[in-house]
Amino acid sequence: MNSHKSALEQKIIRVDLEPVGRRAEIQHGITLLEASQSAGVELVAVCGGVGTCGKCRVQLMEGALSPVTAVERRMFSESELVLGYRLACQAKPLSDVKINIPPESLTTLQRLQIEGQEATIAVEPSVIPVDLKIAPPDLYDLRADTTRLKDAARELPHPPAEPLCLDLPVLSNLSEQLRAHNWAVRLALRGGEVVVVLPQERALLGLAVDIGTTKVAAYLVDLASGVTLAKAGMLNPQVAYGEDVVSRIAYTNEHPAGRQVLQARLVEGLNTLVGQLCEQVDASPDQIVDAAVVGNTAIHHLFAGLPVRQLGAAPYLAAVSEALEIRACDLGLSLAPGTYVYLPPNIAGYVGADHVSALLAADAWRTAQTTVVLDIGTNTEISLVVNGRILSCSCASGPAFEGAHIHDGMRAAPGAIERVQIVDGTVRVQTIGNQPPVGICGTGILDAVAEMRAAGLVNHAGRLLVQKNGTTFTLVPASDTGHGRDILVTRRDINEIQLAKGAIRAGIEVLLREAGIASSAIEAFVVAGAFGTYLDVESAVRVGMFPDLPRICFQQVGNAAGIGAKQLLISARRREIAAGILERVEYIELTTHPEFTDVYMEAVGL
Amino acid sequence: MNSHKSALEQKIIRVDLEPVGRRAEIQHGITLLEASQSAGVELVAVCGGVGTCGKCRVQLMEGALSPVTAVERRMFSESELVLGYRLACQAKPLSDVKINIPPESLTTLQRLQIEGQEATIAVEPSVIPVDLKIAPPDLYDLRADTTRLKDAARELPHPPAEPLCLDLPVLSNLSEQLRAHNWAVRLALRGGEVVVVLPQERALLGLAVDIGTTKVAAYLVDLASGVTLAKAGMLNPQVAYGEDVVSRIAYTNEHPAGRQVLQARLVEGLNTLVGQLCEQVDASPDQIVDAAVVGNTAIHHLFAGLPVRQLGAAPYLAAVSEALEIRACDLGLSLAPGTYVYLPPNIAGYVGADHVSALLAADAWRTAQTTVVLDIGTNTEISLVVNGRILSCSCASGPAFEGAHIHDGMRAAPGAIERVQIVDGTVRVQTIGNQPPVGICGTGILDAVAEMRAAGLVNHAGRLLVQKNGTTFTLVPASDTGHGRDILVTRRDINEIQLAKGAIRAGIEVLLREAGIASSAIEAFVVAGAFGTYLDVESAVRVGMFPDLPRICFQQVGNAAGIGAKQLLISARRREIAAGILERVEYIELTTHPEFTDVYMEAVGL
Repeated sequence: MNSHKSALEQKIIRVDLEPVGRRAEIQHGITLLEASQSAGVELVAVCGGVGTCGKCRVQLMEGALSPVTAVERRMFSESELVLGYRLACQAKPLSDVKINIPPESLTTLQRLQIEGQEATIAVEPSVIPVDLKIAPPDLYDLRADTTRLKDAARELPHPPAEPLCLDLPVLSNLSEQLRAHNWAVRLALRGGEVVVVLPQERALLGLAVDIGTTKVAAYLVDLASGVTLAKAGMLNPQVAYGEDVVSRIAYTNEHPAGRQVLQARLVEGLNTLVGQLCEQVDASPDQIVDAAVVGNTAIHHLFAGLPVRQLGAAPYLAAVSEALEIRACDLGLSLAPGTYVYLPPNIAGYVGADHVSALLAADAWRTAQTTVVLDIGTNTEISLVVNGRILSCSCASGPAFEGAHIHDGMRAAPGAIERVQIVDGTVRVQTIGNQPPVGICGTGILDAVAEMRAAGLVNHAGRLLVQKNGTTFTLVPASDTGHGRDILVTRRDINEIQLAKGAIRAGIEVLLREAGIASSAIEAFVVAGAFGTYLDVESAVRVGMFPDLPRICFQQVGNAAGIGAKQLLISARRREIAAGILERVEYIELTTHPEFTDVYMEAVGL
Repeated sequence: MNSHKSALEQKIIRVDLEPVGRRAEIQHGITLLEASQSAGVELVAVCGGVGTCGKCRVQLMEGALSPVTAVERRMFSESELVLGYRLACQAKPLSDVKINIPPESLTTLQRLQIEGQEATIAVEPSVIPVDLKIAPPDLYDLRADTTRLKDAARELPHPPAEPLCLDLPVLSNLSEQLRAHNWAVRLALRGGEVVVVLPQERALLGLAVDIGTTKVAAYLVDLASGVTLAKAGMLNPQVAYGEDVVSRIAYTNEHPAGRQVLQARLVEGLNTLVGQLCEQVDASPDQIVDAAVVGNTAIHHLFAGLPVRQLGAAPYLAAVSEALEIRACDLGLSLAPGTYVYLPPNIAGYVGADHVSALLAADAWRTAQTTVVLDIGTNTEISLVVNGRILSCSCASGPAFEGAHIHDGMRAAPGAIERVQIVDGTVRVQTIGNQPPVGICGTGILDAVAEMRAAGLVNHAGRLLVQKNGTTFTLVPASDTGHGRDILVTRRDINEIQLAKGAIRAGIEVLLREAGIASSAIEAFVVAGAFGTYLDVESAVRVGMFPDLPRICFQQVGNAAGIGAKQLLISARRREIAAGILERVEYIELTTHPEFTDVYMEAVGL
């Protein structure tokens, strides 16, 4: 028996960490938290791994772990335990195991490395390759170049269903291309339309872009397989003309060519991103024969060069709501000459194509469950899917969760406090990159308010109860910070968070009332976007931003808009579904809704 | 009886001159030549009106003229007399008369004032107006601007057959336009496509352009009525980069952005022309919702920005032969934002869209007569219509007929000798504008060679027989010229004309051989273009450029390409016919034709 036990202890145990796709090889007796760290996967552990913060939740998918501890019994419901939920700091593998790490258990930097939850969909690209051998001209065969091309296509064993047509940007270089490639070419065909003429071995690529007000994420995708070959990001260059869309709209109203300037700056940036993507995989921009771009309505308009004046004043109308297919060259985007850029439909002036994309990525369009999908930002878009209906609204949640208007607020960058725990009056913080704290980002301020309320440091109305003057609370004293100054939470900060979370909750409540259901009827609560992915759901529930649903209902899905963009890129069917979503959505305007103000006033309390 | 006669003599006689549309009011006893002059209509009268040159031919349509004179009996065949042909210098009206003046009887300057022979066709424009009243937005009606527009169109008593679609250039200003016009607008619709949004009373206009290698003619047309509202012309700005298309192709081969430069210069010029046209009728360029542009294949390509390198080297291939519809904005043309420019098909590298347009204008596509249509220029395009076939070729006739490569050659401008007659060794000339002679234009040199041959001054081989050195013939001595120098015809000039006319005749003969018919089978011989309209058919026959057909077979139709362009502008049906012409045409390449060289060598003799 002893010798057997000894053998077991010496055996190497494999720990597969999903969805990050890393493997740790450990000795017996090591916790999952330590195993993850050894594989370079950082889990949230505000308490330092003693089991008191409950943040390092993971789920056992295969294999065996040490028995559930008393600490874990306090942290999890019975149903969660049945589903295999454990604390990584408590559980030790007894065999090779496969562990699922929910996004909320990963630290911010870690999460930036991974993709959101990506559903596998059928690859049905709108642009397909057709290889042609064309008879070269001679003195006795004087057909024009296009005629020669079309004749060769007609003579294929499986000719294209539609007769070929060539638009000016393709025609402009056709004669050179045919001769350069010795009359053996690959056409990229969009229906009958020739998008580009390439050498025969060249792969057809697609570009998916999620243009945020602040950040832009771009993906280069192989259109044959649907595989993402490269990704790259940048700051939206329009930030220089206004931090938010309202100030950018103001810029275009005040400058005669402002719209053109904003469009040109963004497209220049995108062309640089495209160059970087292509360099990563040794491809050429003229292999990019299809594109899908998502953004909120204002960003959508500013990208396409559409007017935004009417978006900046009541009743805040979109110029266009239906999906658009715009020639890349008309936008100044340097892709293949005949490439079209697909933009999904906008639901309303402040519920844009990016939200349609997120609804698509979250499979909300076909779910049978009563589902909330929301994407938190300066404007928060919320949809409620119930009984085949999709109710959508937008609420002005403000920039507090992006660290703006907060005394020591900052963006989610190294040194930002991203997690806060207050135990017996002691404040524990976790920073991005484990750097000395220099400020508080959105998830940190949300945690701070939730913990301060739980610790009795703040009352229901948001009043600070501890300090004499009642206006500030020292979260981290100067001695412990990276810059030698106190990091404070002010009464004003708390009020900002109250207004923000109150607006979001009020939006949810108005949709529930419109649907005639209670919040308890919600079966799935999908939180998309950067902040939504990094926030602590517990804190969001405790401050009243989210309804108090069983923990299992919440899904933090990452950049759903970006995932949706990729789906729209590789699947013509998804584009039809997006059009169908637009038809189905019932948009609820909160500013004129009779119950909104009452609901909002109620929702700002802590 | 005497009093009756006296009354007749005093009666004012009305002479209606067609197709110029002028009226002379004359006394009894006045000739038609004098009557025309009194109405400002200048007829060709090299002999000064004594009945010896036979150039002032006219045709009686209505009314009575004085009896046919002995002079006229010599000049006309019996069948011509039956058809009412007379010499204007001989015939005197006996009653109110209507007289038809063939183009060849008008002086050059006069002919520049009038249009070519324009057939009336049904007006079936591709773009039509639809007036809409749209519900303005408010806080409870938040539809996007495009949705609002489309909904209003669907609610019309007669909604458009196709659902509306709006391309980016139209979308870019839609929101402003709808608001500027208080939601009451006129749409210009091309199928379902919105070309522009205008105020409701605004007329829809079209632009027809004939781009020659040297000259450009533009017409502004009312699309509802088909009426030409204004016309304007200019020199083709590309002349600065090469006099002919070969040198322009060379320019684009030698300069990396040469193609773009040539395209931009031409389009700049066209935009200026459009501005002039609009000013003439107090219209705006954004009322121009359709356009048709014709030119030879190289000019077509250089206008559209298509590659021409392959046009400049054997086997001289067009990049595109089928008809194109290109967005005006893609070309840089400032018309309505969604306007497309229609370009008819090209038959071959040197038989272009302008020839298709001319075939259309000449009704050659549906004639039952064996018909030749030709347009003489540096390249001469020739078509033979016979038994439902259309055989076409192009021959390199060179620039001699434009006054180039001729010792005293000049363009058709004031002071250019346009008609020559040699009677009993005496040379009579007529100049453009009746100015003192300073040079010889194409029609003049053709006449000169024909007359010199008839007068025995030149032999069959083109050798000068009079002067001792045999190299020059003095057409006008220095004392009679405007610049005080002899105006000469050199042996070299005669050879240039021989080569030019030989090429044209050889082209005609090769087509006849391909069709297996003799020249005598030709029933109609249509000569189009500027030189073709001004030339003396008699001279052309005498030098052997044209076959010796009954005079009645020849029609000089003016700018047929321009007329065809106008037809293509106002009639979608004509565009279908143009496509049908391309399908039917059998292009004969002369450079590789086995019989061409023999035929050519034979055709250069005088």
